[in-house]
Amino acid sequence: MERIESGIKGLDDLLNGGIPYGHTVAVIGPFGSGKTTMAMQFIYHGLINNEKCVYISLEEDRDSIIKTAKEFSWNFDDYIDKNLLLVKLDPEDAKSTMTRVENDLTQEISDFGAKRVVLDSATLLTMMFQEEHEKRKILFLMSNAVKKAGATSIFTGESKPENPMVSRDGLLEYVADGVILLNQIPLKEKYELRLVLQILKMRRTSHSRKMHPFYIGEKGIEVLADVDLL
Amino acid sequence: MERIESGIKGLDDLLNGGIPYGHTVAVIGPFGSGKTTMAMQFIYHGLINNEKCVYISLEEDRDSIIKTAKEFSWNFDDYIDKNLLLVKLDPEDAKSTMTRVENDLTQEISDFGAKRVVLDSATLLTMMFQEEHEKRKILFLMSNAVKKAGATSIFTGESKPENPMVSRDGLLEYVADGVILLNQIPLKEKYELRLVLQILKMRRTSHSRKMHPFYIGEKGIEVLADVDLL
Amino acid sequence: MERIESGIKGLDDLLNGGIPYGHTVAVIGPFGSGKTTMAMQFIYHGLINNEKCVYISLEEDRDSIIKTAKEFSWNFDDYIDKNLLLVKLDPEDAKSTMTRVENDLTQEISDFGAKRVVLDSATLLTMMFQEEHEKRKILFLMSNAVKKAGATSIFTGESKPENPMVSRDGLLEYVADGVILLNQIPLKEKYELRLVLQILKMRRTSHSRKMHPFYIGEKGIEVLADVDLL
Amino acid sequence: MERIESGIKGLDDLLNGGIPYGHTVAVIGPFGSGKTTMAMQFIYHGLINNEKCVYISLEEDRDSIIKTAKEFSWNFDDYIDKNLLLVKLDPEDAKSTMTRVENDLTQEISDFGAKRVVLDSATLLTMMFQEEHEKRKILFLMSNAVKKAGATSIFTGESKPENPMVSRDGLLEYVADGVILLNQIPLKEKYELRLVLQILKMRRTSHSRKMHPFYIGEKGIEVLADVDLL
Amino acid sequence: MERIESGIKGLDDLLNGGIPYGHTVAVIGPFGSGKTTMAMQFIYHGLINNEKCVYISLEEDRDSIIKTAKEFSWNFDDYIDKNLLLVKLDPEDAKSTMTRVENDLTQEISDFGAKRVVLDSATLLTMMFQEEHEKRKILFLMSNAVKKAGATSIFTGESKPENPMVSRDGLLEYVADGVILLNQIPLKEKYELRLVLQILKMRRTSHSRKMHPFYIGEKGIEVLADVDLL
Amino acid sequence: MERIESGIKGLDDLLNGGIPYGHTVAVIGPFGSGKTTMAMQFIYHGLINNEKCVYISLEEDRDSIIKTAKEFSWNFDDYIDKNLLLVKLDPEDAKSTMTRVENDLTQEISDFGAKRVVLDSATLLTMMFQEEHEKRKILFLMSNAVKKAGATSIFTGESKPENPMVSRDGLLEYVADGVILLNQIPLKEKYELRLVLQILKMRRTSHSRKMHPFYIGEKGIEVLADVDLL
Repeated sequence: MERIESGIKGLDDLLNGGIPYGHTVAVIGPFGSGKTTMAMQFIYHGLINNEKCVYISLEEDRDSIIKTAKEFSWNFDDYIDKNLLLVKLDPEDAKSTMTRVENDLTQEISDFGAKRVVLDSATLLTMMFQEEHEKRKILFLMSNAVKKAGATSIFTGESKPENPMVSRDGLLEYVADGVILLNQIPLKEKYELRLVLQILKMRRTSHSRKMHPFYIGEKGIEVLADVDLL
Repeated sequence: MERIESGIKGLDDLLNGGIPYGHTVAVIGPFGSGKTTMAMQFIYHGLINNEKCVYISLEEDRDSIIKTAKEFSWNFDDYIDKNLLLVKLDPEDAKSTMTRVENDLTQEISDFGAKRVVLDSATLLTMMFQEEHEKRKILFLMSNAVKKAGATSIFTGESKPENPMVSRDGLLEYVADGVILLNQIPLKEKYELRLVLQILKMRRTSHSRKMHPFYIGEKGIEVLADVDLL
Repeated sequence: MERIESGIKGLDDLLNGGIPYGHTVAVIGPFGSGKTTMAMQFIYHGLINNEKCVYISLEEDRDSIIKTAKEFSWNFDDYIDKNLLLVKLDPEDAKSTMTRVENDLTQEISDFGAKRVVLDSATLLTMMFQEEHEKRKILFLMSNAVKKAGATSIFTGESKPENPMVSRDGLLEYVADGVILLNQIPLKEKYELRLVLQILKMRRTSHSRKMHPFYIGEKGIEVLADVDLL
Repeated sequence: MERIESGIKGLDDLLNGGIPYGHTVAVIGPFGSGKTTMAMQFIYHGLINNEKCVYISLEEDRDSIIKTAKEFSWNFDDYIDKNLLLVKLDPEDAKSTMTRVENDLTQEISDFGAKRVVLDSATLLTMMFQEEHEKRKILFLMSNAVKKAGATSIFTGESKPENPMVSRDGLLEYVADGVILLNQIPLKEKYELRLVLQILKMRRTSHSRKMHPFYIGEKGIEVLADVDLL
Repeated sequence: MERIESGIKGLDDLLNGGIPYGHTVAVIGPFGSGKTTMAMQFIYHGLINNEKCVYISLEEDRDSIIKTAKEFSWNFDDYIDKNLLLVKLDPEDAKSTMTRVENDLTQEISDFGAKRVVLDSATLLTMMFQEEHEKRKILFLMSNAVKKAGATSIFTGESKPENPMVSRDGLLEYVADGVILLNQIPLKEKYELRLVLQILKMRRTSHSRKMHPFYIGEKGIEVLADVDLL
Repeated sequence: MERIESGIKGLDDLLNGGIPYGHTVAVIGPFGSGKTTMAMQFIYHGLINNEKCVYISLEEDRDSIIKTAKEFSWNFDDYIDKNLLLVKLDPEDAKSTMTRVENDLTQEISDFGAKRVVLDSATLLTMMFQEEHEKRKILFLMSNAVKKAGATSIFTGESKPENPMVSRDGLLEYVADGVILLNQIPLKEKYELRLVLQILKMRRTSHSRKMHPFYIGEKGIEVLADVDLL
């Protein structure tokens, strides 16, 4: 099976070599667990390998994205427009977002020739809509847009506060071919939080089901694939 | 009593020989627990024994199903149309799905002469409808279609995040003659997930009520019927 | 006080001799806990003692009921129409069910001269209705129909997944004179489920409040009234 | 302060001599915990002391109430109409019940000269109404009817399954001057239920806040006021 | 900072000398925890110090309030009208209550020259209204009425059954400058309830954050400020 | 990266030097945990460093804010109008608040040249609106107003009673670049509450993920960055 490197150190080992080509992978977790960082790192790995990438954001605007990436020395501005397409969706205007996704975005992603796509975050996207069926629709539209373009993608999603192993809208995991959980678990009698990663689902490949510690350093996320939690 | 072999290694032993003929068995569990794999394996076992099979999917399209099966060396394409009918229902269009199930599907399944039917997933099917009574209706329609054709079937269903022993819509277990739970339970102080299977209900036969470990290998699911969890 | 034998081995001892005559007893529990089996056994005990019995089902149709009973060597077909009335209510058509129960069923049960009545399941019955007051109404109608006929009855009901000591609709226990819980509790560090029975309420008689193990064997349910759980 | 004897052996000691005169006492607990028995015993104690009593029931009809009381050798029929007024409210017809309570019941209770009143159960009464404000209204109407007549009363109420220290509608404790909890707690590693009583609130008097075991014997409820739970 | 004595023995020590002048203090807790007693004691302390006091009740009427106070030898009737204004709001008539609070009450409290005000209970007040915004409005109106009059006040409020540290409507703590929790916690292996007090919030002053036992004796509440819970 | 000093002793160390310039930081926690104190301290630190500051309050009015600050010897009145703008939003009038924020506030903050902005509390702001999308809108408007002005800000927010790591409306954490939790955790067998601070999220900077004790003294909040909780 064809796979692509995630660019996240340690993760590809847990996936038997990488993310299956064409998969939509949901990266879920509570806020502050590193979902955006992982998504950017995935994009940056594509950029330095000369792949075309699309980064769709509802949380941060163009400038903010570039600044955030720069903190890890990922120079998104070097690639903008030629290899990197930054798309900002307005988290307020539900109607125009639906129209945009429905009419243009599929074509845009496809025309651009995207190999990697990020949607940050799918939760803010579904949160824009009141009705369950609209939430489902926008998510399927987005997913189909990416699949048609033949791209591999990461959709970030907030996890449910009362159960971090499930996404907030409870829909994202249906759209996704894989689900990776980034979580913060209390260590040392609950007085400190430790970042951990766990692959909950990945179609068409066997994978680790362990919880692995990871950290966010100067070069982004590194998963300690061989370190056991005590 | 007449029974049919599930094709899942180890499972038939727990069921005193197999699934009672004509049963609708709900296979419930969280995402990533192997429900689709079990459903495909059930179908493949029918195919190689020359039984006619129908695979109804709302999650994956035709190509994707074939690809997923191929990962386990189950060559669905060898059987397509002659012995295997792949039906893709659109998880977005509630109205047309209801019409299709109500009018044609019963006839289709029956005309095809299906011995085994899979519905993957019943959760996505009920999720399409807003009203409780519509959810119930589509589920009963589907179930009746299968029963009338005299087929034995597996309906997969997501389990409730807060209580994996119950299906997400809370309806599937009413339609089903049997309920098999696929679950991921934390082992080793919660830092790793272990796959386990448990038969929660099976009409007209006695059965194991133990939790059995299983794994997903190159040839699909194997239940370790004789292995005790520590 | 007049009592009738339940026919369930061991249960009558826990009830000081049997179910008080004329009682409506709710048998609640999760799916797969043996509620239908207990209801059928109660009916069969009446049949072999030459009592007229009515079995009202929403879950299984005529054929299915007979087949299920036959697994325990209870030959329902020997008694059909003369001593056993099988009534199938359609779990989909709320309106006609309400009409039927309201107009005819009371008369039918009474004319038949029923001594024992089973409703399997009250949960499916109330689930047919959207509004709380309709749920309550159908349940009271059904209960009154049975009471007027002077019959003793068992109404099965699914228990709440998050609290098995309460029925799913939270209404059944108001209608019932008695409540018997069939439950599955995890034994051996949670890796196996054990069937247990507990009488939660029984008007006009003292009763055991212990949890008793039971099993489902070839001749139906046997309660181990004298066995203590460790 | 003037007090009246409850008639429940052991309870008056926990209340420093009895229920304060004119109080409305909510007796809450799960089904099967003895609420109706306690209410009947309270009435019977009035009857044998020549007090006029009113028993308002939504659960059982006239015959059933008399039969249930007779199980404890409380001969309600000896007192009927002269000293005991049995009122049956239809748990189905919300409108007529509201009208009846609003217009006639206050007068009836007062004209009868009731010293003790029982309402069994307040939960079924409030359950008849859909809207929160109607529930509140019927409860206040009932309470005021009793207060105006100068009677002391017991209102039984189902407790919340997930928290037995609160009534099901969450309103009864606002109307009541006192709240007595009848509960079933698991003993011996959860395999047996023990009946316990606890006074949660009693205006204008100090009271025990301990949990006391009680049992239901041939002569009704006896609270073991001096027995400590282990 | 100016402070006023609460009159509750032991409490002022925990508050570094008393309640900050002009504060609205929410006293929250489950029913039966002594909220009304504390509110009355606060008023009585004002009365014997010749301060004008207003007691607004939704739970008890004029006579009942006087009787309840008399149990602690607090002779409210000696002060009525001259120094003590008793206001009874009808817990049923939402509209007229809103009008009364909106139009007259502010003026009344101010004209009377109230130094201390009690609202018993804020929960019954907000419970009268269906809509969230109405609940909020009545609470702010009441709070502003008191603030404008320059009075220090206690608003009692039921706490949430599932979390006693929060008020039932979830609004009272926003209006209040301080929150005091009266709670009943299980001692001795859960078989007895112990009354405890804890200051959860108090603007403009440091305060104890410990849980302190208290009891309700013949002279009202006494907080055992120096006693540690084991 | 440019950072600004929070003014809270100990906090800047946990943030590797201070709050990233231009960030909106949500300070969430239960009532009484010191959120308002931290916000005022943040403002005061700006004032004494000659920065222009805006304090937007929904909880306390002008006088009350000044009084509360004065308890910590922070003389807000010395700076009013010249360097400190106090804005009081009416927590009752949703419409006019929406209009004000939409039309004027952005301009006001920008014209004033604010470097630091506080919104106390974002929860009361969103609570004014019934509809989810209005809540989201007002929060984004407010956040954008601050961002456009180039100010660094603190938005206080009540945390969910059942899960203090999440804000009450579940929206604040989406708007914020950082989330700081102020919490009260039970120590010594639950009989005393200890104040603790934890940084849950901070974009573009690494940060401590430990829980740190803090206290509120005469000079405001001091975080004990080097003290470990036992």
